[in-house]
Amino acid sequence: MTSTTSMMCSEITEQPAALRETLAALLPLTPEIAALGRETRHVLFIARGSSDNAAVYGSYLLQVHCGRLTSLASPSVTTTYGAELDLSGVLAVAVSQSGRTEEIVETMRWAAGCGARTVAVTNGAGAPLAQEADLALVTRAGDELAVPATKTYTTQLAALAVLALGLGADRDRGQLAAVPDTLEASLDSPDGRIGEIVERLVGVHGAVVSGRGMAFSTALETALKLKEACYLRAMGLSYADLLHGPIAVVDGGTPAILVAADSGPTLPGMVELAERVVATGAAAYGIGGGPDLGAACDVAVPGPDLPEWLAPIGLAIPAQIITERLSRRLGYNPDSPRGLGKVTQTS
Amino acid sequence: MTSTTSMMCSEITEQPAALRETLAALLPLTPEIAALGRETRHVLFIARGSSDNAAVYGSYLLQVHCGRLTSLASPSVTTTYGAELDLSGVLAVAVSQSGRTEEIVETMRWAAGCGARTVAVTNGAGAPLAQEADLALVTRAGDELAVPATKTYTTQLAALAVLALGLGADRDRGQLAAVPDTLEASLDSPDGRIGEIVERLVGVHGAVVSGRGMAFSTALETALKLKEACYLRAMGLSYADLLHGPIAVVDGGTPAILVAADSGPTLPGMVELAERVVATGAAAYGIGGGPDLGAACDVAVPGPDLPEWLAPIGLAIPAQIITERLSRRLGYNPDSPRGLGKVTQTS
Repeated sequence: MTSTTSMMCSEITEQPAALRETLAALLPLTPEIAALGRETRHVLFIARGSSDNAAVYGSYLLQVHCGRLTSLASPSVTTTYGAELDLSGVLAVAVSQSGRTEEIVETMRWAAGCGARTVAVTNGAGAPLAQEADLALVTRAGDELAVPATKTYTTQLAALAVLALGLGADRDRGQLAAVPDTLEASLDSPDGRIGEIVERLVGVHGAVVSGRGMAFSTALETALKLKEACYLRAMGLSYADLLHGPIAVVDGGTPAILVAADSGPTLPGMVELAERVVATGAAAYGIGGGPDLGAACDVAVPGPDLPEWLAPIGLAIPAQIITERLSRRLGYNPDSPRGLGKVTQTS
Repeated sequence: MTSTTSMMCSEITEQPAALRETLAALLPLTPEIAALGRETRHVLFIARGSSDNAAVYGSYLLQVHCGRLTSLASPSVTTTYGAELDLSGVLAVAVSQSGRTEEIVETMRWAAGCGARTVAVTNGAGAPLAQEADLALVTRAGDELAVPATKTYTTQLAALAVLALGLGADRDRGQLAAVPDTLEASLDSPDGRIGEIVERLVGVHGAVVSGRGMAFSTALETALKLKEACYLRAMGLSYADLLHGPIAVVDGGTPAILVAADSGPTLPGMVELAERVVATGAAAYGIGGGPDLGAACDVAVPGPDLPEWLAPIGLAIPAQIITERLSRRLGYNPDSPRGLGKVTQTS
C-alpha cells in the first residue's frame, strides 16, 4: 500500500518560509561578499551531489552576470592525488548541506592552504565548513529529515544568488527578495498536470532530463532525484551534449523531461529540442518554458513566474513534487531511499 | 542479420599507428607549449561530446601533474548569453575532432577576444580551429568515417598528454612515446572476456559507468559511446557522485561498468565500489584495474600495461570494442547511429 504523504512532501511545502528566512539573513551580507570578492577574479566551486548541481547554477550565474570565470573542483585532485595548485586570486566556494562532508571540508581547507579566499554555503551553522570559511553564508532551511534534499537545495540556490549580487551581478535584488512570495502562491495550487506526468513515468525504462544555461542545473538535479528516490535510469544531459550524440537514446520507453525558464536566450533551443524529441516518436514532458515549450511537449507543467536568473529556484519545485509522488506511486519511501544516508562521506 | 565487421572496427585497430604518427608530430612541440604556457596560470577547456570527455582527462592531468587550475567551458555562456569575462592569464584549449564545430570555434574566438592565449587540439589540419589558434596540436588520426569517435579520441588524449609535458608535468615522456607499441600488442590479442561482457549487456535496461580521477574520463566516454551506438541508457557517474546518491539505481537490470588504471591512488576506492555493487545484487563488469578490480567484479577485461597518467588512452580501447560488438549484436550499425552526423553543430 502506498502511503499518502511523506516528510519530503512536508519539506517541499516549507520552502517559501525557508527561503524567506535565508534571504533575510543573507541579503545584508552583500558588502562582506563584495569585500572578499575584490581580491579575487576566479571562482572555484567545491561540492558533491545536489550541492554540485547548485554549484552548476552558481557557475552560470557568476559567468553570465558577474563576468567571473568559474571552475567546479574535482575533490579527488586533492583528497586522493594530493595535488598542489596556486590558488591566489581564487575565491573558493564550498557548498554542502550538512557542512560536515569530509572531502568537502578537506578540499576547502586545501584551497585555503593554496592561497584561496573561502566562502561556505551550508545549512550547518556550527559545522566545520561554516566555522572555517572566511565568510559563511548559512542557509536557514531548518532541519531536513528526508534524505532527498529539497529546502536545503533551493536555499543553497538563493545563497548563490546573494553571492552573485555581492560579486556585482547586474541584476535587481528586489526580484530575489520576491521569490518566496511567488513560490508560495504556486505551491498553494499545484498544477494538475504534475499528476499526469507522474502516471506517464510509471513503468518507463529510463529518462533523459535536459536543460540549458541557468536551468541546466535543474535538469541535473531532477535526474539525480529521480535516480535517488525512484531508482529511475535518468540521464541528465545539457541541451548541446544531448544533440551532440546521445539523442538516439530517447525512444518509446525513454521519454525526455525538458526544463526551462519562461524567458531568456536559451528558451528557443529548448523548444526546438522538444520538437525534435517528439519527431523521433518519444515523449517530451516540460517543466516551465512558458506557452512555447508547453505547446511543443506532450504534457508540461508551468514553471514559476520568475526572471530567468532566478527561475532554477522555482523550477526545482515541480521536479521535487514529481519525484516524491512517483516514488510513492512505485511503492518506495521517498524519505529513505535504499543505500543512502543524510551526511555523505567519500573516502 | 548482423554484419561481421564495420568501419568502426577497422578504425579501432588503426589506433596504434595513428598514435605513433600523432606523437611523432607533437612531442617536438613541447618547447612552444612551454613558451605559451609561461604567460598563463589557468587552463580553460572548450569542447563538446567525446572531445569534452578528452578535456576531462586533460583537466585531471594538468591539475594533478602540472599544478594548474582548470575549467571546462560552458559554450552557451558566450554563444547564447554573450557574456564577457577577463581571460588574461588564461590558456584556452579548444578540443574538436573536425575543428569546424561552430560553437567551439566561436567560443575559442571569444576566449581570444577576452585576452586568453589559445591552443587547438584537432584532427582538422586546415580547419578554422587549427588556423586561428596561437598553437595548433594537430592529431594525425587520418580520416575517420564511422560516426563514433575512436582514433580521433585517443589521439586527442595523446595530444593532451603532450600538452601536459609542455606545461611541465613531472612525468616521463618516454612512457608516452611507448604507448603505441603497448596498445599494438594488446590489440593483437583481444581478451576473450570482452565477448562475455557483450553477451551479458544484451537486454539490460541500462548501465552505470563509473571511474575516478584520470579514468573518470574513460567512464564518461564509455557511457556516451553506449548511448550513441547501442542506445543503452548509460549513466556516466564519478565514483564519488555515485556513492553520494544514485548507487540505488544499480540493480538486477542495471549493471555497473567500472573503469580503472592498474595502479594509482584511485584504485582501492574502485575495488570497494565494485564490492558494494556486487553486494547489492547487481552485476559489476571491470575494464582495467588489475587483479584486485578483476577479483571484485563478475567479469573483467584487463586494461593496458600503462602508468596511471596514460592509462585512459588504452582503457578507451576495450570500451570501444565492447560498444562496436554490442551495437552489431543488437542489430544496429555502429558506423551510422540514428540521428547523428559527423560534424556536430549546436546553434
